[in-house]
Amino acid sequence: MYSNVRIVMMNTSHPGNIGAVARAMKNMGLAELCLVAPKSFPDIVAERRAAGAKDILANTKVVETFDEAIEGCVSVIGTSARGRKIPWPVMNPRDCAAKVREYALMAQKSGEFGRNGEEHGNKVAIVLGREDRGLSNDELQRCNYHVHIPTNPHYSSLNVAMALQVVAYELRMDFLLHSGLGDAKQASCTLSPENEGWDEPLATTEEVEGLIGHLEDVMIKTEFFDPDNPRQLIPRLRRLFQRSRMDKIEVNIVRGFLNTVLKAIGDKR
Amino acid sequence: MYSNVRIVMMNTSHPGNIGAVARAMKNMGLAELCLVAPKSFPDIVAERRAAGAKDILANTKVVETFDEAIEGCVSVIGTSARGRKIPWPVMNPRDCAAKVREYALMAQKSGEFGRNGEEHGNKVAIVLGREDRGLSNDELQRCNYHVHIPTNPHYSSLNVAMALQVVAYELRMDFLLHSGLGDAKQASCTLSPENEGWDEPLATTEEVEGLIGHLEDVMIKTEFFDPDNPRQLIPRLRRLFQRSRMDKIEVNIVRGFLNTVLKAIGDKR
Repeated sequence: MYSNVRIVMMNTSHPGNIGAVARAMKNMGLAELCLVAPKSFPDIVAERRAAGAKDILANTKVVETFDEAIEGCVSVIGTSARGRKIPWPVMNPRDCAAKVREYALMAQKSGEFGRNGEEHGNKVAIVLGREDRGLSNDELQRCNYHVHIPTNPHYSSLNVAMALQVVAYELRMDFLLHSGLGDAKQASCTLSPENEGWDEPLATTEEVEGLIGHLEDVMIKTEFFDPDNPRQLIPRLRRLFQRSRMDKIEVNIVRGFLNTVLKAIGDKR
Repeated sequence: MYSNVRIVMMNTSHPGNIGAVARAMKNMGLAELCLVAPKSFPDIVAERRAAGAKDILANTKVVETFDEAIEGCVSVIGTSARGRKIPWPVMNPRDCAAKVREYALMAQKSGEFGRNGEEHGNKVAIVLGREDRGLSNDELQRCNYHVHIPTNPHYSSLNVAMALQVVAYELRMDFLLHSGLGDAKQASCTLSPENEGWDEPLATTEEVEGLIGHLEDVMIKTEFFDPDNPRQLIPRLRRLFQRSRMDKIEVNIVRGFLNTVLKAIGDKR
């Protein structure tokens, strides 16, 4: 994941939210957390909510001011509900992720260190507001961008850890899909029998045709299907089996069953 | 939002997670929640975590079995970590949202009711697993699709409400961007001075040129800038002001300042 992201939490009241943010960060591959004057930290409630992400809490920096928290950052992105008096450049979480990627790739190109010699160059701070009041106007105006999650306008009060989860998820999706550093397959994990990763090879069209012919034969022999009054039976079956993109084993299983049926009725006659 | 989505929670142990899911649902515009044999519901802890989403909890249906929970659904999508024995069709949350949209649009086209006459036709169930063990293999095999959130492979244990937040966020983004029913502007809320929604009209190129000429004039008169030794000063300023896409008021403010400076040095001489 991008190593140039620092998550900043302003004056967090509930230690549980700090733990939930740490867990969400680790889930999505982020590592650097900075707390500005939290009400209580370290705190057992935070540790419990962090579950397996206690390492993030152990490395969390606690500072007193917004300025200390964003020190060394080339860009500051504040989370914001909409409707500020002076409109600021606003992005949705997807565009925010693309912006972070731009900075990360810039830093990568210029070596491991940024222009100012800081480790993990082009550090971007993503700042989460207070549980009850978000970020102040002063703080928002210190940001280069605002990120806004498009919530239901009638109920937009998003929990701070939930907001971070969404932003961090978009960072990870973007990283996997676009950065050239991640494994794009992991993000676009859509899997169907047509993809690599399915456990059995796809049946060929001949194999599926063989199955349909076999089925038709058995249906005639069982007198389920009357070729003199075909209606739409066969086309409907054909459509079903073609649509489901069968793999070889599935074809073999159905044909095995059909053979069993054939034998059974042959035995009867 | 799509009205054809039912969120199903299996055997939830912690009522707080039910409340957090309700809140996340309402944030993203979802309404229908069904609980399968929860440990405790209703529960004051769930109500507290639901914050303003108590209406969702009030309308939550409690049932005893997976079958009852998915009754009337045309498609069932189970949340899943990776690595099941038999690969199943897997989608990431973005593709999952597109799939839900397909069903919603199909239902819309055929009137408000589905083929089987159910309200809000083409209902899709999204099923969340237990906090500790997720969904069972049996349950996963009852699903048409699995949705997998591409977490950090070294720490993939996502809280159940966080997982729902991500899935619901993608549903909302997809709805706003693609459905033709939502307000695409809300999702692609990227805002810069070039967009509708900025509070002041963009300055024209002439106005910006006027500013740059004005600035150059003042810089010469203040002897900050020597036209006989121009170096890259003016191109650099030009690049700065052009890049920032100034609005009319910003141009006026800077030019007002420049006039003040001109007057001040005129007074001095």
